[in-house]
Amino acid sequence: MSNEVILLAHGSGGRLSHDLVERLFVRHFSNPALLQLNDSAILNLSDLQPLTSNLQLAFTTDSYVVSPLFFPGGDIGRLAVCGTVNDLSMSGATPLWLSAGFIIEEGLLLADLERIVVSMAATASQAGVQIVTGDTKVVDRGCADKLFINTAGVGFVPPGVQIAGNRAQPGDVLLLSGTIGDHGMTIMTQREGMTFESPLQSDCAALNGLVAALLGATGRDKVHVLRDPTRGGLATTLNEIAGASGVGIELVEAAIPIREAVRAACELLGLDPLYVANEGKLVAVVDREVAEQALGALRAHPLGADAAIIGRIGDEHPRRVVLHTPLGTRRVVDMLTGEQLPRIC
Amino acid sequence: MSNEVILLAHGSGGRLSHDLVERLFVRHFSNPALLQLNDSAILNLSDLQPLTSNLQLAFTTDSYVVSPLFFPGGDIGRLAVCGTVNDLSMSGATPLWLSAGFIIEEGLLLADLERIVVSMAATASQAGVQIVTGDTKVVDRGCADKLFINTAGVGFVPPGVQIAGNRAQPGDVLLLSGTIGDHGMTIMTQREGMTFESPLQSDCAALNGLVAALLGATGRDKVHVLRDPTRGGLATTLNEIAGASGVGIELVEAAIPIREAVRAACELLGLDPLYVANEGKLVAVVDREVAEQALGALRAHPLGADAAIIGRIGDEHPRRVVLHTPLGTRRVVDMLTGEQLPRIC
Repeated sequence: MSNEVILLAHGSGGRLSHDLVERLFVRHFSNPALLQLNDSAILNLSDLQPLTSNLQLAFTTDSYVVSPLFFPGGDIGRLAVCGTVNDLSMSGATPLWLSAGFIIEEGLLLADLERIVVSMAATASQAGVQIVTGDTKVVDRGCADKLFINTAGVGFVPPGVQIAGNRAQPGDVLLLSGTIGDHGMTIMTQREGMTFESPLQSDCAALNGLVAALLGATGRDKVHVLRDPTRGGLATTLNEIAGASGVGIELVEAAIPIREAVRAACELLGLDPLYVANEGKLVAVVDREVAEQALGALRAHPLGADAAIIGRIGDEHPRRVVLHTPLGTRRVVDMLTGEQLPRIC
Repeated sequence: MSNEVILLAHGSGGRLSHDLVERLFVRHFSNPALLQLNDSAILNLSDLQPLTSNLQLAFTTDSYVVSPLFFPGGDIGRLAVCGTVNDLSMSGATPLWLSAGFIIEEGLLLADLERIVVSMAATASQAGVQIVTGDTKVVDRGCADKLFINTAGVGFVPPGVQIAGNRAQPGDVLLLSGTIGDHGMTIMTQREGMTFESPLQSDCAALNGLVAALLGATGRDKVHVLRDPTRGGLATTLNEIAGASGVGIELVEAAIPIREAVRAACELLGLDPLYVANEGKLVAVVDREVAEQALGALRAHPLGADAAIIGRIGDEHPRRVVLHTPLGTRRVVDMLTGEQLPRIC
């Protein structure tokens, strides 16, 4: 199919739409729920989950518009699966099922679409989730930029888990699962044409396994907040937590892991890594009793090898994030204002 | 906000993103699950549904790229809510929760976005569903066409319901809930600039109430297939049913309700109404024992006033749809090939 391109008729709902569904989506995403090919996927809860009287579902969605479609460490498809798996995981939920909605610009190479679909299938399989329902729309040339993907996700919240942005308490400890800025600086250097000289790679990864390891080590009720610092970076995520919980966050700059290449690229482009997007990292606010177990569990997992304790929750200056610099000074770190880079995810 | 437009920074994940969420989405979609404002909405199943041992969820998604954004009888927001409610309903599920993902072109008028969000909220409220989670991305000017919306939906399948495209059986009766072609011809005449002379209006509507009335009148096990004939029209939908069930469908042309204005517009534009999209109609394949009850239940509902029995399921010519014309001739009606009109939904 090397020269074939997507035509408007692939989005017609007619013969070519059916061919595309069979040839790409059914073939690569194949699973019993998807193969029903009805207007909805029908999912048996009781197959998967002992039904308890306080059964809770988690439900989330994100659209992905990243440019370029392919980048070191991932592609829009891998991002679309990981991002939604991560949003479910940050609620403490076990991700199970994803939907996939494709908005395609007429003229996209079918081979590029297939490469992305194959990447989504592999990522979903690694994360232990199934893509059970989908949709394809095609818009005329110039009315979209190659490809946008929406995924929504459904999972279960295990009994006893109560993780939410408003549960940080003074005395809690703040952990970060690894280096910051890898995804954002990879995309930026790609766009700036600095690719040849850069060893940067997106950290795009599904974090459900890491969350399961963390909850297993600490007990489900000791993890108070989980967030993945994507758009807006670590600074924005921490401001969201401080605001929702009405607490202050004391952040230790020297403790925040950053790769040298990311630091160098940030300096070159005049960017603060605290505001650069990540796609495979999490922030955890945990009871201080379990901080060391939490750190150990993160570091024992391949996706948390560089984990660190980066600060603590306080009760001074509520709703603010204060950065303690290596020079002994302090400054307030605000939420991202303006736009650093459009279409980072 | 009459002159304000969407900026790239509204999609940054930072301050302006938060403002937009508060000002539009939280304000108009307001419900407890959405107000959690975490990475996922947490939904208590046990509040809504007696937990049975064979609990089944329905899960579906669609993206909406219709152009123009506003049209007689609806807008892209109303379409995005109705379409996903209808996909859940066509599985016999009770729709409960929707997600909403917005992909916005920089420069969209904030007032237009708000008008659409208000329309989504009103449509969701009428349909008895909640928009519980969402996402906003902004792409630079020229990289999308004003606004695309994805909705995904989750619902429950009541015990005893077994509705699927492969359950049509010879002897079953085929019903249609009303006139065909209204949505598609409304969009087409808008685009052709025939608006001033046209009394056409989209049929865009949420069909969950109509399905509940139908199932209540017939018994849950007597309705075998439900489909809403959207993209590709009635002809494509019936071909899908014939293919999935391995049956033949005998369709009586004279029995298919069509408004005179739709017929006239089709003739003018050289289109076959059998292939024109609908957004508020359903096709039902029911046990012949309950055909009259089914027709009565549909006609008694405001969205089914023009319902009709339009054919039957046979065992001759499996996988084909045969149209019986008023002249006594027969012709095979195939699935849509090519593209009638891009961005009809």
